[in-house]
Order: sequence, then C-alpha cells, then structure tokens
Amino acid sequence: MSILVVGSIAFDTIATPSGRADNVLGGSGTYFALAASYFTNVRVVAVVGDDFTAEHESVLTRRGVDTRGIERAKGKTFRWGGQYLENLNEAKTDFTELNVFEKFQPRIPQEFMDSQFLFLGNIHPSLQAAVRLEMNSVKLTGGDTMNFWIQGTRKELTETLKLVNILLINDTEAKMLAGDSSLPRAARKVLVLGPQALVIKHGEYGATIFFRESAFGVGSHPFRAPALPMEEVKDPTGAGDSFAGGFMGYIASQGEINREVIKRALFYGGVMGSFAVELFGTERLQNLTRADIDARFQLFRELTHLG
Amino acid sequence: MSILVVGSIAFDTIATPSGRADNVLGGSGTYFALAASYFTNVRVVAVVGDDFTAEHESVLTRRGVDTRGIERAKGKTFRWGGQYLENLNEAKTDFTELNVFEKFQPRIPQEFMDSQFLFLGNIHPSLQAAVRLEMNSVKLTGGDTMNFWIQGTRKELTETLKLVNILLINDTEAKMLAGDSSLPRAARKVLVLGPQALVIKHGEYGATIFFRESAFGVGSHPFRAPALPMEEVKDPTGAGDSFAGGFMGYIASQGEINREVIKRALFYGGVMGSFAVELFGTERLQNLTRADIDARFQLFRELTHLG
Repeated sequence: MSILVVGSIAFDTIATPSGRADNVLGGSGTYFALAASYFTNVRVVAVVGDDFTAEHESVLTRRGVDTRGIERAKGKTFRWGGQYLENLNEAKTDFTELNVFEKFQPRIPQEFMDSQFLFLGNIHPSLQAAVRLEMNSVKLTGGDTMNFWIQGTRKELTETLKLVNILLINDTEAKMLAGDSSLPRAARKVLVLGPQALVIKHGEYGATIFFRESAFGVGSHPFRAPALPMEEVKDPTGAGDSFAGGFMGYIASQGEINREVIKRALFYGGVMGSFAVELFGTERLQNLTRADIDARFQLFRELTHLG
Repeated sequence: MSILVVGSIAFDTIATPSGRADNVLGGSGTYFALAASYFTNVRVVAVVGDDFTAEHESVLTRRGVDTRGIERAKGKTFRWGGQYLENLNEAKTDFTELNVFEKFQPRIPQEFMDSQFLFLGNIHPSLQAAVRLEMNSVKLTGGDTMNFWIQGTRKELTETLKLVNILLINDTEAKMLAGDSSLPRAARKVLVLGPQALVIKHGEYGATIFFRESAFGVGSHPFRAPALPMEEVKDPTGAGDSFAGGFMGYIASQGEINREVIKRALFYGGVMGSFAVELFGTERLQNLTRADIDARFQLFRELTHLG
C-alpha cells in the first residue's frame, strides 16, 4: 500500500543538552516519510527552495521515498531554530523563517492520486482539507495539528477534522482543542468533532488512543502504548512526526484496518519515535534495519506485557 | 502472609472540582491498609488522638485490618486540609496540624514482630529506619518518602534507603532525590543509594519500576503499568498510598517474590489507585470485592496488551 504525506521540509538549527546541530534536514514531512519508509511505500508532497540539494533529496530517495511531489520554489527552504536546554519535552523556538513554505499550495502529482493512505502533516487546516478532498479514494486519513491552528484557525480546523479518520496530537493540544483539562474528557469531546480515533501523545509516557464507539472494532476501550525510558535523549525534534510515520506506515502495511492492527501501530509509533531522538536530526532514521525495529518492538512489549 | 504498615492516620478536609469533604478519615497508613487488605493480612502501626472514635477504627477492622498497633495519645489526631481545584495532579495544602503525629514514636506490638512484609509510610526517615531495624525477620521492605524529607533530612534518608528493598515515589521526588531531570537517569542514581527496585509513580500516566541488575530476576529491564483513563477523578487524595497498598499487598499474597509477581503487583497498584480516586476519602476502598478488583485488573490488561 502507498501512503502520501503532505508536510514541511525544513532546515533545523537545534540546541539540546547533548550538543547542537546547524541547518540539518528536518520538517514534519521528512521525519514522517523516513519513519514510514520502513513499513510501506511513501510519497511526499512538500515545497523546498534553491538551497535543497540533490544530496538532501537523496536522504529520502535512498529510503525509497517518492519525491516527485516535492515542489522547488524560488527562494530559501523553511528554516527553524529551537532549543531544549531547559526542558527536553518542549522546544523553545529561537526563530522561524517560513521562506517558500509561506506560500505553499500542495499540488498532488497525478501519479500519487492512487495512494490508499494519507497523512496530513501540521500545515494550515484549509490546505489539509483541500488535499483530503482532492484525494477521493483514500482508505484512511491521519492528521496532525498544533496550538497555532487550534487558536488561530479554529473554524477551518473544525471543517478539516470532519475529514480526518485518526487525529494525532499531544496532551496540550488535546486539552486546548477540547477546552477541557481532563485528557479522557478532552478525548471524548475531540471525537465528537469528527475523527473516529484520537491518538494523544504523552511524550516520555507514551501515547493513548481513544476510539469512537464501534470505530474499527467493538466498543470504545482506549489503548495505551509506552515510550522507551531513555537515559539520553539527544534531540527530541521530530519525535512526534516519526511516531506518526511509524503509526501510519504500519497501518498502511497491513491488509486490513482493525483494532489489533491499530494497537500494534501505536507500538510502532513509539518505536520510531524512540529511534528518532537517539541522534540529532534524522540521522538515526536514515540507517535502521527492519531487524532493529523488530528488536525494539520486542523491548516495548517486554516493558508492558505481563507473562 | 502478613504485612505491617507504619504511617499516618489523619482527618482530611479536601476540596476538588467535584466537591468537598470535611474531616474524613485519611492518612497514608489508612489508605495503604485498606488497599492492601484485599490481598493479605494487614497490621497498622500509627498514632491517633482522642477524636478517633470506635467508628473510625471500624473502617479498618471491618476490612480485617489488625489495629492493635494504633496508639491513642492525648490530643487531636493529625489533620490536613488541601485542594485540587486548579490541578488534580498536585494538592495545594491549606493547613497541616500535626497534633499527636508530631511526637509519633512507632511502637511495634510483640504480636506484629512476625510480619514478613513491611511498608514504611511517609514519616521521618529516622523513624522508618528504627522500625526496619527492629523488624529483623522481614522478607521485603517497601518504603515511601517525600520532598520534605529529601530536602530536609537527606542524611537520615540516605541511611534509610539502604534498608529499603523497594522504594515507591513520584516523578518529582525521584528527580529531586537524584538531582537529575531525566527519569531513567534519576532511577539509576536512586538505585545506587540502596533499593533493589524503584517504583516511580507518574500519576495519570501510570508507573514504571526500575530494577538493579539481577534484582528479583534476570537483567535490569524496567516495566511499566498504566493508570486508567478516567473522565472524573473525584478526589486524588491517597492515590499514591493506595497504589502502594495494592502493590505491596499483592506481593505479600504470593508465595515467592520474582519479576513476574512484581510486574503484576505494579498493575494491582494502579488498580487500587484507580478505585481510590473514584470517591472522596477512603469510601471506595471500604466497599470493594475481589471481583471488582479482578475486573479492573482485566481492564488494565486490555488497555496495554496486544493480542
């Protein structure tokens, strides 16, 4: 199965207690695509500037990612700078230069129109909706959003949420979106807005998926997957996008979509997130094997499963 | 098997978004004893004042708890007032009246000396150590502490930690005790201080147990148990002590102490914590059945286990 991701490609400048990295390849589309590439065919729709070289592109193509949807615009690629010096759980943004990303209008190549799975990365909700409406034949749509859109474009976001099957956001975003300080109550309220399932990412505590009654299976019992206790998180950038890539990539790799597949996908999300933070930027995600991934999946299982 | 708990008995005045309760029976010893009473024989060592009535005592004795170690002192019972109006995860203390608890010197009745399991509730570390040294024949000692002792009596606490097999504290306490902002690193540093295992309680995200190499089994892989996503937490007071009661009580109920028993105990800790917060004070913990507990254990399993 093929999954199409619409998101950002960026050059990140990052400082963490473990060191720093300047102008390394990043962006939600990049992290998602690399993580998902270990499970299924991945197609990227994004925009870059003149400074995006063949070498940068090869980071994706070496992983088999189809980059024909990457538009080259005049100007510079999106740049972001941030630090996690005081708190590894939340970036402090130093600068954001949208550059070519400011006028991004996703264009889906004809060859991508048959993608069965779609992931709407964290871009303006109206662009997310436009992409989704264009992709009529997708089986499942995942989506992300952030505080900026929840506060600034709530009306548009509300429309987009009706088109998303599984929304993946973090604790703070879920509480803000629902206007409720209890996560389980917030989850119920978000599900009323449209998605059939909601993944809430808790950072180092893992993630919980909440289901609408009867969505993808029986009942509405939530399910929780862990994160790996790690003594050193080198660089948290992209952990959430890598989680989404592992989660959606695994689902796309399976014949059918049911609760058991989705539960395993939640584990694979955690697995890919745990790899992402081991090295700066996307370095770790570029050089994994399926054996690495399966071994870590087993670690996640041992961490949570009774005998 | 019998477990002896040394802790506080208190009258709590609590305000939460769900309501309030005045002068209800509480204290670490009470919550622990009630939770553990569903698994094993429980003996309490604590101090109360003239205001502790036969009716209060019957809350414990109705659950089969042996109260012969409850000393009656002249004066009033420990009183605490707190609220969770802004944050269900952390109490804001309104008042603390130590009363008879201020001069508490635990005295172990001769009939309790054969207890195989011991839990040192959150009291002065020197008192914890004295009790532990008196109880020479215990198989396993669990212990709790808090920020107040970590900051104020570190030297005494360091001595006590050498006498504790399993320490149960929360995220903030673990980071403070280790002087490290990373939980897994903090865990490693705490284990160097003495305990063979460390349970870190994450509130609504569950708990993780870290092991010293080869303690209770093979290797040192951590294990994580969930908390139950609950739409309404009526009163978080005593959740941690109830967790400890379920955890230690289950271990005491088993023939041997190994990793699998400890993992299940971590689940039972979460189970008892989840019951405790459903009603104000100890009300829910007074009226459970083993079937209620087993059904919830099953819920915890379904929440985390792949098929």
